Amino acid sequence: VLIVAERINASRKAIRAALETLDAAAIAVEVRTQAAAGAHYIDLNGGTFPGREAELLCWLVDIAQSETKLPLCLDSPDAEALAAALPRIKGERPMINSINLEPGRLARILPLAREYRAKLIALAQGEGVPAAAAPGKVELAVRLVERLVQGGMALDDIYVDPLLFPVATDSNAALASVTAMREIMARFPGVHTICGLTNVSHGLPARKLVNRTFLAGAIANGMDAAIIDPTDPLLMATLLGAEAVFGRDEYCVNFIEAFQAGKLS
Amino acid sequence: VLIVAERINASRKAIRAALETLDAAAIAVEVRTQAAAGAHYIDLNGGTFPGREAELLCWLVDIAQSETKLPLCLDSPDAEALAAALPRIKGERPMINSINLEPGRLARILPLAREYRAKLIALAQGEGVPAAAAPGKVELAVRLVERLVQGGMALDDIYVDPLLFPVATDSNAALASVTAMREIMARFPGVHTICGLTNVSHGLPARKLVNRTFLAGAIANGMDAAIIDPTDPLLMATLLGAEAVFGRDEYCVNFIEAFQAGKLS
Repeated sequence: VLIVAERINASRKAIRAALETLDAAAIAVEVRTQAAAGAHYIDLNGGTFPGREAELLCWLVDIAQSETKLPLCLDSPDAEALAAALPRIKGERPMINSINLEPGRLARILPLAREYRAKLIALAQGEGVPAAAAPGKVELAVRLVERLVQGGMALDDIYVDPLLFPVATDSNAALASVTAMREIMARFPGVHTICGLTNVSHGLPARKLVNRTFLAGAIANGMDAAIIDPTDPLLMATLLGAEAVFGRDEYCVNFIEAFQAGKLS
Repeated sequence: VLIVAERINASRKAIRAALETLDAAAIAVEVRTQAAAGAHYIDLNGGTFPGREAELLCWLVDIAQSETKLPLCLDSPDAEALAAALPRIKGERPMINSINLEPGRLARILPLAREYRAKLIALAQGEGVPAAAAPGKVELAVRLVERLVQGGMALDDIYVDPLLFPVATDSNAALASVTAMREIMARFPGVHTICGLTNVSHGLPARKLVNRTFLAGAIANGMDAAIIDPTDPLLMATLLGAEAVFGRDEYCVNFIEAFQAGKLS
């Protein structure tokens, strides 16, 4: 399961403060910590500081690249910020988080992804009311994936995000997302699915338990990437367990190694 | 999710000793503890003491019924033991664990289930080599369910067990079981699916983590009953979490109550 490490996000207070004061050391620590914890991509979200999106995203890219060789996930809906940051990428192909079916976003971000050979997180989301049930999510995802493939993207470079809603307000929200992910992967062999976890537990107590449980259930339905905090040891133990249980860790080699390294307790 | 409490099983040393010495108090404690922990059925497995299966199963039934009003799950492949124990059931309809496609077992246990209105755990298992992959499990389950329905069983009284194998020797074992459960429930709306968890982690370290992770993934695929130890607090927290996440706990009412009662930490 591909781990996109989520901690460098302006919605977190510490990151917002680091962005406001241009505290590069604070960002650097987050990059190193997540890389050491097992991240495969480092997500960079510079928030929405009016007129400064491009500047701050570039600042984050430069710091991240000075700390790690891991590929980066540029987390912005703003094509201008992405267009400014993408040329600075030095190492492995980046990921863009995210594109959806909104015509303006699709028309501006898809060419950038092609030009810079970026992978894409593709949100099952259009301009209207978001789809709550699995069939609606699948329909939106199918339309988006078909547009991306027509536009020259390889299925292997597309990570479909079903847009997970909180179960506290809709008991079927998580089932709808995992069912949609399973059906999208069956429809487009080779495409990936991805999800952030935190939305699912919005409004509930014991949120980390809820998030972990969702993660196990999503992996059991085929989800092969996740936007998570790799420094959360219980979450990582669940991820390693789910990989071992649900066919992503042959002979459970990684799981046994993690146990021997004391990472499962 | 229906909880069949598994602790009274002759494969456990303490229970075997209690059976050998007819220590009723030791059995009674297990009945009460599991009932208090949230069991819906108390499984009674008296083991294979040659010539004494019927006597010991009856002994367990009598003790259990003196301690709880919960229904019982008579866990024996031995039709004679079941025939002796079933007439002693006083309360709610019992469950029989289990029937399969072996002609002798099917021919003897199905009439008992009908006569005593027992629910049945139906193992996806014939006489030949057990099925490792999902299609084989589904095929065996379909044949068995059709035989049971022809024999007069209601789908709502049938709990299909896909026969879970260890992932340490077959990485696809758990995926095969959850896929089979999902397909069986789609094929026979109203039928239930059930599983013991411990097989999946055979040969691995951190077995409880593996079992919990499988439980979450199985519930995410529709499994609606489980043979578990309800006195394991982390396992029960995962079960409550999976019910809340995967559409079996409207507005997460049980989950929030469990949190407030301190059961999720």
